[in-house]
Amino acid sequence: MGRLTGGDPSLLRRINSAVVLHALRAADSATLTEISRVTGLSRPTVEGVVEGLIASGLVMETLPDEGQARRQGRPARKFRFRVEAGHLLGVEIGSHRVSALLSGLNGRVMGSGVREVGETASAEERIEKVRTMVADLLRRAGIQRSSVRAVGVGSPGIVEADGTVRLCTALPGWTGLDLGDRLRRSFRCPVLVENDANAAAVAEHWKGAATDSDDVTFVMAGLSPGAGSLIGGRLHRGYGGAAGEIGALHLLGQEATPETLLSTTGEPLHPLDEPAVAQVFAQARQGDTRAEAAVERFIRRLVHDVAALSLALDPELIVVGGWAAGLDGVLKPLREELARYCLRPPRVALSALGEAAVATGALRLALDHVEEQLFAVEGTVTARR
Amino acid sequence: MGRLTGGDPSLLRRINSAVVLHALRAADSATLTEISRVTGLSRPTVEGVVEGLIASGLVMETLPDEGQARRQGRPARKFRFRVEAGHLLGVEIGSHRVSALLSGLNGRVMGSGVREVGETASAEERIEKVRTMVADLLRRAGIQRSSVRAVGVGSPGIVEADGTVRLCTALPGWTGLDLGDRLRRSFRCPVLVENDANAAAVAEHWKGAATDSDDVTFVMAGLSPGAGSLIGGRLHRGYGGAAGEIGALHLLGQEATPETLLSTTGEPLHPLDEPAVAQVFAQARQGDTRAEAAVERFIRRLVHDVAALSLALDPELIVVGGWAAGLDGVLKPLREELARYCLRPPRVALSALGEAAVATGALRLALDHVEEQLFAVEGTVTARR
Repeated sequence: MGRLTGGDPSLLRRINSAVVLHALRAADSATLTEISRVTGLSRPTVEGVVEGLIASGLVMETLPDEGQARRQGRPARKFRFRVEAGHLLGVEIGSHRVSALLSGLNGRVMGSGVREVGETASAEERIEKVRTMVADLLRRAGIQRSSVRAVGVGSPGIVEADGTVRLCTALPGWTGLDLGDRLRRSFRCPVLVENDANAAAVAEHWKGAATDSDDVTFVMAGLSPGAGSLIGGRLHRGYGGAAGEIGALHLLGQEATPETLLSTTGEPLHPLDEPAVAQVFAQARQGDTRAEAAVERFIRRLVHDVAALSLALDPELIVVGGWAAGLDGVLKPLREELARYCLRPPRVALSALGEAAVATGALRLALDHVEEQLFAVEGTVTARR
Repeated sequence: MGRLTGGDPSLLRRINSAVVLHALRAADSATLTEISRVTGLSRPTVEGVVEGLIASGLVMETLPDEGQARRQGRPARKFRFRVEAGHLLGVEIGSHRVSALLSGLNGRVMGSGVREVGETASAEERIEKVRTMVADLLRRAGIQRSSVRAVGVGSPGIVEADGTVRLCTALPGWTGLDLGDRLRRSFRCPVLVENDANAAAVAEHWKGAATDSDDVTFVMAGLSPGAGSLIGGRLHRGYGGAAGEIGALHLLGQEATPETLLSTTGEPLHPLDEPAVAQVFAQARQGDTRAEAAVERFIRRLVHDVAALSLALDPELIVVGGWAAGLDGVLKPLREELARYCLRPPRVALSALGEAAVATGALRLALDHVEEQLFAVEGTVTARR
């Protein structure tokens, strides 16, 4: 171990602490003997580490159950990871609504909140909605704000590594906003801001339609689609955080803008006006020829954009989410066209998480951050996990 | 070190051997004392390891130079890595020619060969050309075939991990060919087959236009462009080895085929008929309006394909190679359009390696393979390099 730790005894302690915590989290509860066996650490080392973890609030002794206490004179002490020692938030900031999920340190959702917000709301109004929604969610769950260890946030737009929104056409006042910094002032804990499609990709991989694939592209299907991709299980953000922003492809040449794509009247639709968009799809189902042509245009564009993503990235699986995923007739032509034209067509699946995808992915990002703090010591623990 | 090696003394020996070899390759030559200082290994350990490396032929003692011999009674013995202990080949198999580069174990090119081949040549003929070209190259360089430790091969098409060509429209008889296996029979050493654009991306990153970027997409510009990408310095092959095959994008919808794209007569051009293609570009320069329109169509398609790659992957740098890169007027509109429409436009550079890009990348793949064998022991050496 000398090489690994560089002879630094405090680093060695941190490694041992992470290893013990990891073993405890994997089990419901464990005795010192069991921890020693699983980790390969000596009994006295385990005792010392567990004492330290109890002092930090991350571990507690469990009460022996009645039956066991009666059978044996003095049952072995058992310990467990305190999932309630801290909390995590996953927040979605969208054009029509903001929503949040709350969990303990194991990432299991224990509460949620949602607020509608107008698509023309200012950045201030939108952020204020997030604040009040989260305050209400924490109050209802009986959780102190100081217990929140990390907040993940999913938002449309190109997001820099520091949480600044580099470009966002969907939300007013969002371009240039230092969103991470603004929210850090409210939460006083790490805030991780991620593009919404990227967050959704993480979510589908965690507990949605992509749990069995490490090479997946999530398509946020709408008038101007965006995408998030995992490559080898890791989020591919791109050099400037803009990977997957395929919606700009139509800007080349003289193609229809997203606003005119689904229009049946010649008047542009607002890209975020979901009721108007849904109406066009409904009209098409009723045989309105202009609506049918508009839907045809829309689907052709979506297929083209998804094909471009698929050819560039060659994912195993494409998960389609966003509002257009719920509309009839999107998935079938997508599958057919990809099968015809992609050299190696990917599987195509519908989002399993639906409206919860972005907030769920944001929660996972918060969980990743805390796990890194608790369990990883300069990358050494990766191999142990 | 107990954890790292699992107490296996032969693994420990292999690690030490890799470390010493790595230190020796970085220096021209070194004394045992110098090796001991650089590696942190004890003098007796270094002595034992160096003896073993001499026995394996990878290291030799250098002769002390005259001046030093006179100044000191008995100069310290010096050792060096024998770059001549093995050789590597990088082979390009293209539609019009096959070519090869030869190097020692340091990857420095010491010879090259090239053979023209007809675009309609059968798979057998093409492979035979490779064999005779390599035989001639080795003979001219005075290198035994048995000294070749690894062969890298760059070829058009989607290439499986085992070296089978899954799909290739450019070379007759290539689809389904077990190219790796066929060449392994000739060379009796590891043969690594890679898509040509992927190989070119590796080459430009190694010693071309992309040495300063780890997030680069190489575009093999032609009538039907393909691309290879490095993400974080690693080749991104895609789930099925088909990443970057963007040329299929035009198959969607009713767009012009590659064959009619540059046609000025209505008669389809053969996509690989470079003289005919070059003539259209020459006619356009002379003001022929039909040729100008054809070139305009061609450039618009290329820009569209490259934009799709750029939006999907968000590379830092795009390197344009392939025959179209040499034609006037391709780079400028590409830069302008990407700057206008990509949310975060990448830098665009011309291939620095030109026609040598694919063979150079293939050589690098062979070098990577041998370095892994010589220097890496179950991933433990990565951290030391």
